[in-house]
Amino acid sequence: MFSVTVRNHIMIAHSFRGEVFGPAQRLHGATYVVDATFRRAELDADNIVVDIGRAGEVLGAVLAELTYRNLDDEPAFAGMNTSTEALARVIADRLAERVHAGEFGDSAGALAGITVTLHESHVAWASYERPL
Amino acid sequence: MFSVTVRNHIMIAHSFRGEVFGPAQRLHGATYVVDATFRRAELDADNIVVDIGRAGEVLGAVLAELTYRNLDDEPAFAGMNTSTEALARVIADRLAERVHAGEFGDSAGALAGITVTLHESHVAWASYERPL
Amino acid sequence: MFSVTVRNHIMIAHSFRGEVFGPAQRLHGATYVVDATFRRAELDADNIVVDIGRAGEVLGAVLAELTYRNLDDEPAFAGMNTSTEALARVIADRLAERVHAGEFGDSAGALAGITVTLHESHVAWASYERPL
Amino acid sequence: MFSVTVRNHIMIAHSFRGEVFGPAQRLHGATYVVDATFRRAELDADNIVVDIGRAGEVLGAVLAELTYRNLDDEPAFAGMNTSTEALARVIADRLAERVHAGEFGDSAGALAGITVTLHESHVAWASYERPL
Amino acid sequence: MFSVTVRNHIMIAHSFRGEVFGPAQRLHGATYVVDATFRRAELDADNIVVDIGRAGEVLGAVLAELTYRNLDDEPAFAGMNTSTEALARVIADRLAERVHAGEFGDSAGALAGITVTLHESHVAWASYERPL
Amino acid sequence: MFSVTVRNHIMIAHSFRGEVFGPAQRLHGATYVVDATFRRAELDADNIVVDIGRAGEVLGAVLAELTYRNLDDEPAFAGMNTSTEALARVIADRLAERVHAGEFGDSAGALAGITVTLHESHVAWASYERPL
Repeated sequence: MFSVTVRNHIMIAHSFRGEVFGPAQRLHGATYVVDATFRRAELDADNIVVDIGRAGEVLGAVLAELTYRNLDDEPAFAGMNTSTEALARVIADRLAERVHAGEFGDSAGALAGITVTLHESHVAWASYERPL
Repeated sequence: MFSVTVRNHIMIAHSFRGEVFGPAQRLHGATYVVDATFRRAELDADNIVVDIGRAGEVLGAVLAELTYRNLDDEPAFAGMNTSTEALARVIADRLAERVHAGEFGDSAGALAGITVTLHESHVAWASYERPL
Repeated sequence: MFSVTVRNHIMIAHSFRGEVFGPAQRLHGATYVVDATFRRAELDADNIVVDIGRAGEVLGAVLAELTYRNLDDEPAFAGMNTSTEALARVIADRLAERVHAGEFGDSAGALAGITVTLHESHVAWASYERPL
Repeated sequence: MFSVTVRNHIMIAHSFRGEVFGPAQRLHGATYVVDATFRRAELDADNIVVDIGRAGEVLGAVLAELTYRNLDDEPAFAGMNTSTEALARVIADRLAERVHAGEFGDSAGALAGITVTLHESHVAWASYERPL
Repeated sequence: MFSVTVRNHIMIAHSFRGEVFGPAQRLHGATYVVDATFRRAELDADNIVVDIGRAGEVLGAVLAELTYRNLDDEPAFAGMNTSTEALARVIADRLAERVHAGEFGDSAGALAGITVTLHESHVAWASYERPL
Repeated sequence: MFSVTVRNHIMIAHSFRGEVFGPAQRLHGATYVVDATFRRAELDADNIVVDIGRAGEVLGAVLAELTYRNLDDEPAFAGMNTSTEALARVIADRLAERVHAGEFGDSAGALAGITVTLHESHVAWASYERPL
């Protein structure tokens, strides 16, 4: 199995609902360093998993919809705790939609799965892994 | 599949028995930067894998039993080479016991597995992965 | 010249005023990974720059006043752009006050200076360096 | 499942053929930071996955055949795009050959698999994972 | 003293002349992760060292003239060993020219100096520091 | 001013004397990731600060005298707390002796200074800087 990963980041505000979150129930924020991994069993005709330049651009487009925002005000997240692990799924699912829409090119149809990891600090991160 | 990882560290002394270890047969030491990863298939009612604050505390409690010690003098490790990979299992198993004992909270019963990675330097690390 | 550095982090929300900030004029947030460096010309009687345990505790106390907050609502920052470089100075100055108040121990009177670096992402950071 | 990883690096020149590569069709180069991971289900009699010193030496020997070279001139890569993911497979396969040749020692026969990750920058990396 | 740093990277081919370089006399290549640091004594009216967005763009423009090239073929480097430390100076000097040309904005006239660090691997890097 | 840095590591056991060290008074250990930086005002005839290969070899030779040892048993450290900052000076001074002994080559006579940084974990490090 092969994989290629590209890294980018977002800077957002949000708050959490639930006693488990303690002081994180207050409005605060995070830089999420985002690693998007694309997997496939065999390389394509160009000997690659995916066009890494295009992967970076599509990841950038997905993240542009999130960064420099207060997620508490985003309709897409109404009533949802935007935890690190939940945002990892949001980003993975949005990348998957764009794979299916052809934004990663023709050969990307053979991609087997996506993993998205969000690093919230130097001591904590979360991932979501899904098939394609 | 979702995962959450928290990082901490220990600083221990130890020695190894066996020619394969070369100069590491002498009493020496290591900082192990410890990454503990918790996996589960679906998020809980708070939209998280595990209370990351509690996960950090429990990891800290497990590591407090190891750090600032000469492992050669610990009864728990009598007759055992405390290699990086073996210590990864020790820590993963102790975390698993605490999951089963309820220290991670009620919803942690749905955790699927734990992976522990110990970084012994910038050029070497080891992991142990187990189900729950 | 000797130095010792300890690392911790804060997670805050804020917004900026001024066209130069572009989309960062919106309410957003950041994880700042904070490195606090303490310098002195000669080591103390224990052969150290500063008690690293105490340095970590004092840094934690200073950061506890900032983390999990919306800095736009903090009276201390009224009318001020809480840029990464400006926050580096705030933290350095608050650490300096605590050095002068004796929180780092008696021998800390010989400290020569403090540098605080805030990493806002994997591709951007800022520092403030001051004497003591 | 246990794993041990060792890190080293190579510095090579190469070019790519195919429009998808854009400016990377020109002769350029890369530092690849190479992580080689060895997996096995149970530890050996010395309580390790593999002799980490020997693993580092064998990885070094495999990389010595690649580093400080223009890969476009290497007969082994004639007509092949030496993408990051393709080089990860080359290195993993060459390590596997050396496992089978006994270079990792007798107990290495129980190794279950190898993963090789090549980091081409701070924002992009690729992996190849294979059984043994 | 304040500073702000932005990070980017280049991927180049080159070779060295001189016995001291050993195998690096062969055509090979490198990824240089480039950190550009801008220093000034006091913050500007927006409470910043420099517009970090613009700094990233100008650094990107300087690096676009170098990346995906064989430096041995660049007239600017004819007869010159493009060592890591020498390239750090080239990039710092080109950034300084653009500061003086006004590309960093009006308030950048108060910048005191620039440091450029090039990381050639996880175990080696070089810097050049200059006033403005 | 130019600089070049090379990285390596040591794994040692030791204990500290003095109440300030708390649990670190017990025999424990550390991995120190060691960064040795060499500075000079102008590059030599080969356009470098120092032969980076030789610098790595000499650093390795200095570290070979320390690694895989219990520093409490080393005559060189009798009666001395081998704190991170104190070890940084030991290593810097030993490198300086080898510069003066000609081990870095003829042009190394123009080196202006050395800085040694020891990383004891992902959250703490110490440095010693000296002229040559």
